[in-house]
Amino acid sequence: MPKSIDIHLVKRPEGMPRESDFAAMERNVADVRDGEILIQNLFMSVDPAMRPRLSRGQELNEPIGGPATGRVIQSRNPSFREGDTVQHRMSFRQLALSDGKGVTRLDVDPALPLTVYMHVLGNGGFVAYGGLLEIGKLKDGEQVFVSTAAGSVGSIVAQIAKIKGCFVIGSTGSDDKASWLTSLGLDVVINYKKESIREALKRAATRGLDVYFDNVGGDHLNAALPRMNLLGRIPVCGMVSAYNNPGALSAPINTLSNIIYGRVTIRGFTADDFPHLRSKFNEDMTTWVKSGKIKYQETIVTGIENAPRALIGLLNGENTGKMLVKLA
Amino acid sequence: MPKSIDIHLVKRPEGMPRESDFAAMERNVADVRDGEILIQNLFMSVDPAMRPRLSRGQELNEPIGGPATGRVIQSRNPSFREGDTVQHRMSFRQLALSDGKGVTRLDVDPALPLTVYMHVLGNGGFVAYGGLLEIGKLKDGEQVFVSTAAGSVGSIVAQIAKIKGCFVIGSTGSDDKASWLTSLGLDVVINYKKESIREALKRAATRGLDVYFDNVGGDHLNAALPRMNLLGRIPVCGMVSAYNNPGALSAPINTLSNIIYGRVTIRGFTADDFPHLRSKFNEDMTTWVKSGKIKYQETIVTGIENAPRALIGLLNGENTGKMLVKLA
Repeated sequence: MPKSIDIHLVKRPEGMPRESDFAAMERNVADVRDGEILIQNLFMSVDPAMRPRLSRGQELNEPIGGPATGRVIQSRNPSFREGDTVQHRMSFRQLALSDGKGVTRLDVDPALPLTVYMHVLGNGGFVAYGGLLEIGKLKDGEQVFVSTAAGSVGSIVAQIAKIKGCFVIGSTGSDDKASWLTSLGLDVVINYKKESIREALKRAATRGLDVYFDNVGGDHLNAALPRMNLLGRIPVCGMVSAYNNPGALSAPINTLSNIIYGRVTIRGFTADDFPHLRSKFNEDMTTWVKSGKIKYQETIVTGIENAPRALIGLLNGENTGKMLVKLA
Repeated sequence: MPKSIDIHLVKRPEGMPRESDFAAMERNVADVRDGEILIQNLFMSVDPAMRPRLSRGQELNEPIGGPATGRVIQSRNPSFREGDTVQHRMSFRQLALSDGKGVTRLDVDPALPLTVYMHVLGNGGFVAYGGLLEIGKLKDGEQVFVSTAAGSVGSIVAQIAKIKGCFVIGSTGSDDKASWLTSLGLDVVINYKKESIREALKRAATRGLDVYFDNVGGDHLNAALPRMNLLGRIPVCGMVSAYNNPGALSAPINTLSNIIYGRVTIRGFTADDFPHLRSKFNEDMTTWVKSGKIKYQETIVTGIENAPRALIGLLNGENTGKMLVKLA
């Protein structure tokens, strides 16, 4: 009987998660029954959206859920064959048993590394693409601001905006990341740990902002609101600043009143908002990645036992680009 | 030569305006020249949106601008005749001289009092109508929350939502106003001065909220955000809570993160967003007012000298319904 090491949530984190909130558990995995498949996970991702679920949503004393890519190693389900590459949300475990629901077969381009399907060609890329073009209604040549611009979503947003001929301002929290963003062609890069985001953005956005792609909320949102042009759009993808401070007065909300006369739209969204864009996205993004128009960085941590540390590192901004855990 | 008493802004208010921030000045009015008209103002309105303009936008030592209804008493402009009823933005003065730009002739229904064209059939009604139906995309039978529901915009929003068969929750700051709202047929009325808006709204919105029509921002917005249903909409018409507290930490912004998974839209708007609705609005609202489906209250203060006090009273919530100043 094969064994799987799984990472359980054993304690709800207060503020920043600690390694002691997690535990590695060994599990015996039964052979598949009719209709089931057994997946060996190859890669899993950690991302900021996992943090709020640890406080509410994720069950205690069970393996944590999240995006993973794996290979089918046993199948008694007619929709899957052994050897299929699949994506699903049963991460933080080496082996996953499934009836096939929520498991998607991946059509992998052999010229690309498998990991790209976890970021630029995966959900991160799709959220960046649809969030900017559909929710943000980006028009060629507009003025764009992206927070956490060196992150897995932000860096794709910034590069798509450059492909569309926009003036792009990005914020990030280290000089290394800032250099990388400059190398990608961003027009202005702000290191928010070195200067006031509010002052720096005011100086940089001389023609205002048509789109602010918000990954963090808080201070960044407050800095962007007074800069928004008439009919500006703020697609909200994440609010990292709130995740570890659920009760804090993180920022004055009253900059929000700027949206009235500017007739600004703030729109929270997920990938569920634009399923119709999926095939166009696959086509555009594959072309852009292959031609080098979209570049990416990865930080790959090896071993299931290091998954909690990877997640904590991500929340502390220790990653460069997409943070992945290699499981096999 | 006719004389006009005008109210000037002589000092920018800090926080709540005081009467000493204003001064009444007498002005000699020249006879009209070619292309000009002279208007005797009959009514002017005071509204919350005037407050931010006193801090920025309104010139010092000049008559204050704002909505007014008047009668043309001299005309050398072919577009206007003496006796025409007109609307314009040269308020806080008895007489207004104009070249006709920004002055609109009013097609008055003789069965209705002239004052209704300053509220239900004026900009307040139009903003309520377009904000709820066009920006809020209200559907019949939805769950609706309106802040300052007894105000000139809020009370119309609440009544339109009832006409559309919605479950309507309104908040207000006094028992008298609450009684009036109950008499209008609102399903739940919250007196936010007597109970926590957050707790009361949580209790009342058992089926969540599809639309929150926001007139105040701050605590009310924070209370509404966690209650929003999937794809909920928040048309933002005003943020009174911010106007007198430009620097204050008025509320935790991090409830905003609720908009992400709920895919909620927050949209600031003005009447400029839906000019195409004007004739449909005039038709619907005239019908509703005449049939008694839309009711209104007015507080009418008499005399130009009392205009500053009317504005301050409005900002302190001393009005019942639309606050107007009768000038002649």
